[in-house]
Parts: sequence; C-alpha cells; structure tokens
Amino acid sequence: MAKEGSGSGPAARRAPAGAAVLREDKTEAIRAAVFEELAAVGFARMSIEGIARRAGVGKTAVYRRWRSKLHLVLDVVSAVAAAGLPAPDTGSLRGDVRMLLEVAARALKHPMASQIIPDLLAEAARSPELAQALKTALHDSQQGVAAAVVARAVERGELPQDVDAHLALDLLTGPLYWRLLVVRDGLPKGYLDALSGSVVAALGAE
Amino acid sequence: MAKEGSGSGPAARRAPAGAAVLREDKTEAIRAAVFEELAAVGFARMSIEGIARRAGVGKTAVYRRWRSKLHLVLDVVSAVAAAGLPAPDTGSLRGDVRMLLEVAARALKHPMASQIIPDLLAEAARSPELAQALKTALHDSQQGVAAAVVARAVERGELPQDVDAHLALDLLTGPLYWRLLVVRDGLPKGYLDALSGSVVAALGAE
Repeated sequence: MAKEGSGSGPAARRAPAGAAVLREDKTEAIRAAVFEELAAVGFARMSIEGIARRAGVGKTAVYRRWRSKLHLVLDVVSAVAAAGLPAPDTGSLRGDVRMLLEVAARALKHPMASQIIPDLLAEAARSPELAQALKTALHDSQQGVAAAVVARAVERGELPQDVDAHLALDLLTGPLYWRLLVVRDGLPKGYLDALSGSVVAALGAE
Repeated sequence: MAKEGSGSGPAARRAPAGAAVLREDKTEAIRAAVFEELAAVGFARMSIEGIARRAGVGKTAVYRRWRSKLHLVLDVVSAVAAAGLPAPDTGSLRGDVRMLLEVAARALKHPMASQIIPDLLAEAARSPELAQALKTALHDSQQGVAAAVVARAVERGELPQDVDAHLALDLLTGPLYWRLLVVRDGLPKGYLDALSGSVVAALGAE
C-alpha cells in the first residue's frame, strides 16, 4: 500500500503544504472499519490495531487522523447524525407518524444499529464526553425530524399550539426503541399502525 | 477468612452431605460485589478475580457457585427481576400510570441502574443467552405490573376490553426509558404529569 506524506515523525508535519495530505480513501476505509469493529467486538474491546488491520492500513494512518479510539468514534457518530433523516410530509399527522415509525423501525432493526447503539450507550454511562456527543447527535437527527412533523401538524390545526415537542419526541421514539433494542422483541403484525394511532392520541390531536 | 467445606479439589465434592455446604454470607457478598463491579467497570471488563477481590473471598469460592461470569450475572439479574415491583392500585388508570412512572423514574435514575442496564443490553446484543435472560426478567417484572394496571382499568370500564397489553407496556415504559437512559436528559418540571396524561390518552381511555 502507498505511503502517505513524506514520513511519519514530527518532521513530516513541517513538510511543505501538500506533502502530507491525508488520503481520503484511507480515511473512508478507516471509518467503515470502525463500524464493522464496533459491531463485531464492541467499544470496550475494540482497539486501534484491530481497526487498522480491518481497514488495511497501518496504525500510524489512524493516529494521524484521530488521537484516540474515543475521538474516532465521536467523529463517525457525529457524521451519521449530521447526515440525518428526511422529515416525512404526507399531509396528515397520522401519516407522518406512521412513516416516521416505519423509518425508525427499519433503522433500529438493522444488525449494525442493534449492535452498535446499545454498545455506545453503555460506554456513554462511563464517558461524559461520549454521552454529550450522543446527546447532540440524537438531538440533531431525531429531534429535528420530530419537531418538523409536530410543527406541520400545528400549522394544519391538528395539534394545539402549545404541544410539548420534547414529550412528543419521547412518545414517537421511546416505545419502538424499548421494544426493539431493550426487550429485543419483534414487531407483531399491525403493531406500527396501532402505535401510530396511540401516539397521535397521546399527542392530543384534535 | 474461614475456609468453606473440607478442601478445594474434586474430592471435596464427594465429601459427606453437609461437609461442603456453601456459606450464605459469602454468596451474598459475591452477589453484592457483582453489582458494584458491573457499575464500576462494566460487563466486558469485569473479571471473576475482580469480583472475588471486592467480595473478600477467593476465586474458588466464586467458581464453586457459578461456572462463569455470564452465569453469575444471569443469576443476579433474575433475582432482581423476581423480587419485582408492586403494582400500584390508586383507584384510577391515571393515578396508577402516574405512580408507575414515578417508581420507574426513580429506579432508572439510580446510578447503579443507569450504569448496569445499558451495559447488560450492550452485552445482550452479542449473547443470545443473556438476551433471553433479560427478556424473561423484563417480562416477569415490568410486564406483570403493567398488565395488572391495564386489567384493573378494563374492570373499572376505563379501558376497552381489547386493549393491547404489549403496546400498553411499550407506551408505559418506552418514553421514560428513552429520555433517561438513551438521551440521558433529566425530567423537566411537570414532565411525569404530562406523560401520564399522554399515556392514558394513548391507551384509548374512554
């Protein structure tokens, strides 16, 4: 594999601009390897060495980009959150809630999500830095989508002006998360329809 | 510390009944140490050696009772679930839901629960045996309480006969779990009252 830059010591950092540019294909290979390693062995057991091996790069290539395992994970989590989910816009609150639950269910059932999310949450209980990054990521992705759905329902007159957006998000996401990633049960036939109806009623739709 | 039984080899197992009785105070010390170690270092990093040290016993005392770290954890989790929560009985669905949420919030905010539960769920994503034990424990504790609350509301005519008990449990537990242990946000003033009202509406109370 091709060497990056012109050396690996501090001297390389002082080379002329352009000489030590980080190769984007390696960065992407490392990011992909992080997800695979997280799913395979979990945060606690994951090592920079294992990530580098899976990505087909040297350990130095990883450390040149991120200074620790935690920073690497924070970075890939933030990138996923920033990509975000599109807010559904079906014309009715019930339709939007149904679609939101459908998308969320598909995401949570994905083997990678169902392995990685619980793992990062476990680590977040011990790392305030990771906890803060996850909270920001959740707010940026989920909260934005839920807020948009609620705001449109208020505009249409389906929900009262003073609906509590935080409570709305908890009601939209909590039950499905509990079932799929805590109890780890499946979704019985008709479950998402029933849940949509319940959530719409819970939000106080008129 | 006093030696248990009459030796530590297989010969001890063949000693007359009573000679190798396991001391209950040691068993309890080990159980307590498991919770403390789980909270302190997590399942992945926890070792039988660390548990034994914290409990003030030898490693052999642990292995005499449980054949692995997994079996030890399965056993203490099952014991907690079997102890269970009392089902509230306030005379109204709204009152029962409010009390259930109050008790659940207090339990989930406890530092030990907020460290141990996410950790075990992370491990459950990799261990079908642990996943099954957690599912059974959750069903035995939470599901029973929620089912009792729902059944009494049906008796009083507050809920229709055909209310979905599984969906009810997801609605009762999910939003609070999501807020406290996933997003790791606090409970704003008035939150449990608002959530109680929403959950009662979601259940289709008449």
